[in-house]
Amino acid sequence: MSATTVRVDLAGRPYDIVIGRGLLAELGLRIAALRPGANTVIVTDENVAARHLDTAKASLAGAGITSSEIIIAPGEKSKSIDVFASVCDQILATRIGRNDLVIALGGGVVGDLAGFAAAAVRRGLDYVQVPTTLLAQVDSSVGGKTGINSQYGKNLIGAFHQPILVLADTAVLDTLPEREFQAGYAEVAKYGLIDDAKFFNWLEANWRHVFDGGPEREEAVAICCRAKAAIVARDEKETGDRALLNLGHTFGHALEAGAGFSSRLLHGEAVAIGMVQAFDYSVEQGLANGQDAERVRRHLKSVGLRTRPSEIEGDMPDVDELMALIAQDKKVQRGKLTFILTRGIGESFIAKDVDPAKVHAFLSQQG
Amino acid sequence: MSATTVRVDLAGRPYDIVIGRGLLAELGLRIAALRPGANTVIVTDENVAARHLDTAKASLAGAGITSSEIIIAPGEKSKSIDVFASVCDQILATRIGRNDLVIALGGGVVGDLAGFAAAAVRRGLDYVQVPTTLLAQVDSSVGGKTGINSQYGKNLIGAFHQPILVLADTAVLDTLPEREFQAGYAEVAKYGLIDDAKFFNWLEANWRHVFDGGPEREEAVAICCRAKAAIVARDEKETGDRALLNLGHTFGHALEAGAGFSSRLLHGEAVAIGMVQAFDYSVEQGLANGQDAERVRRHLKSVGLRTRPSEIEGDMPDVDELMALIAQDKKVQRGKLTFILTRGIGESFIAKDVDPAKVHAFLSQQG
Repeated sequence: MSATTVRVDLAGRPYDIVIGRGLLAELGLRIAALRPGANTVIVTDENVAARHLDTAKASLAGAGITSSEIIIAPGEKSKSIDVFASVCDQILATRIGRNDLVIALGGGVVGDLAGFAAAAVRRGLDYVQVPTTLLAQVDSSVGGKTGINSQYGKNLIGAFHQPILVLADTAVLDTLPEREFQAGYAEVAKYGLIDDAKFFNWLEANWRHVFDGGPEREEAVAICCRAKAAIVARDEKETGDRALLNLGHTFGHALEAGAGFSSRLLHGEAVAIGMVQAFDYSVEQGLANGQDAERVRRHLKSVGLRTRPSEIEGDMPDVDELMALIAQDKKVQRGKLTFILTRGIGESFIAKDVDPAKVHAFLSQQG
Repeated sequence: MSATTVRVDLAGRPYDIVIGRGLLAELGLRIAALRPGANTVIVTDENVAARHLDTAKASLAGAGITSSEIIIAPGEKSKSIDVFASVCDQILATRIGRNDLVIALGGGVVGDLAGFAAAAVRRGLDYVQVPTTLLAQVDSSVGGKTGINSQYGKNLIGAFHQPILVLADTAVLDTLPEREFQAGYAEVAKYGLIDDAKFFNWLEANWRHVFDGGPEREEAVAICCRAKAAIVARDEKETGDRALLNLGHTFGHALEAGAGFSSRLLHGEAVAIGMVQAFDYSVEQGLANGQDAERVRRHLKSVGLRTRPSEIEGDMPDVDELMALIAQDKKVQRGKLTFILTRGIGESFIAKDVDPAKVHAFLSQQG
């Protein structure tokens, strides 16, 4: 089976991201190679369990790895302190030891929640990420950010806890609902927009094959993981340029919160709109040119993503409320706003002194 | 003001433990030296707040450090997931930023809970430990172990999260109830029993002055902190000899759980009985001699501590139930029991292959 391996070079705790079609069937062998005879607890959600749990368990059993499973309800609501407490207790109920493993089998919600539970139970169990959405494969499963939501915002309670292996089976994306694939694609495009104009060009030409599941999909996932791995290796705890990965996320989180973290607006969909807003705002501030912003909008639109807040159905908060959501976002330091802005495609940068009044004015005139 | 400084040499994250009478009044200056102009959130309990919160806040204000406070109910029951969630939310409600600080002002419960909340909020805020019990000054505030309890046992959900400063004011112990001081003293004696026979001899001669608040108190706290700092620097995550600090804790935790984590048996009181059990068991196994075990029992008894399970008032679990509690304890790997055993005073060691049947037999004949 062809597979691409990307190494995450963290001092003392390096690990591999393995990407390829059909890899789920190799889960047992790859875990056995790292931790022979381990006991494992699989954390997954009801939807993923229905599709992939049997394959995962059979693969583990075939390699002499015992497994039990914890199945949570799908959706962002599971990233709560109550579900976290329940998952921790269920992990403890299996009497898992310090040398055993937690396996996060699912999308971003499962990965963030199971990763934080693994970080917290016995002050840190090793875990493996098996991301089953495009979003999770290119973003949330890599880099060790785990966490749950608080009433004050997303991912505000959590841990930096690196997995010991990420196994991204690109074939499992074949059964992903189109809308979820599109949402994840926003994060794919993000890597081009941050610092890789060449990749963005390539995506403009090849995105249909990424969607279709050709070899371009594995290639795109690998490029994203390589980019993220490089940033994480430089700046694991986000004291520096890891923040670039938040392109589109400050605007996006506010919209997502405004839509109640519901299926009205998926995370990646919010990021798509947020990235376009980051470009538009940068253009307005004279930092980037309008053609680049237009190219970004056009590409995201062509894959089926919304690119304007006005395209979000239903009631949304007014500008004052959005600003309050932005101010509560974690990328705020001592009252000044930190945004990822851009000088053009592939030229994003961290702006730490963004004036809230200017952002307010920008949002007020948004269509 | 005289003060003793002990450096904890952790690569990249060294910090000081400062020990001395009246240090609480210097809290603001010492924090301002590390983090000028920081905003702080003090986590404390009702009892400690009544005695020391005004002093702490005045000291901070005098040094230009803003503070707000979160006051929890005293006692082990506050180390729950619900109180943890509430403390996290209250920290977030202050809009604390990544450069601000959490201050844990209190005993072990406050330190463990506030430390874990600091570890989890925004995936890690810096924090300062201001331990106000003897137990916290010599043990729980040093070394970065934080956490809360689960229905499956103590401290099973948490994080390794090192403070940036520990400030131990030995004068605040003057107002500590005698029983709490005695309980904390068990952990003081532990450092002698682990690997410092000379310190144990010194304690036998000087313990009254440690209780009275003479300069011997500061000396004893400093010796304990130095010992703990050395172990933590060698083995932060307890993959090796940090486990020696668990002398008396496996037996002790089971008793503590058996007594319902109530005021019937304080943590240090349980550790005192547990240490005597570890010595008695080691004697029974032909590892240590009976005179050493007798000296340990006599010394702990002389300071007012109980030394036998039979001295615990009220109903206690039977031996089978105690064994179940021991097996669920986190110092278990793949069904074998790990205990800290001893060849004599100052000669403790990690025994990884303790036979549960022998422990069962030992407990069955305990008086």
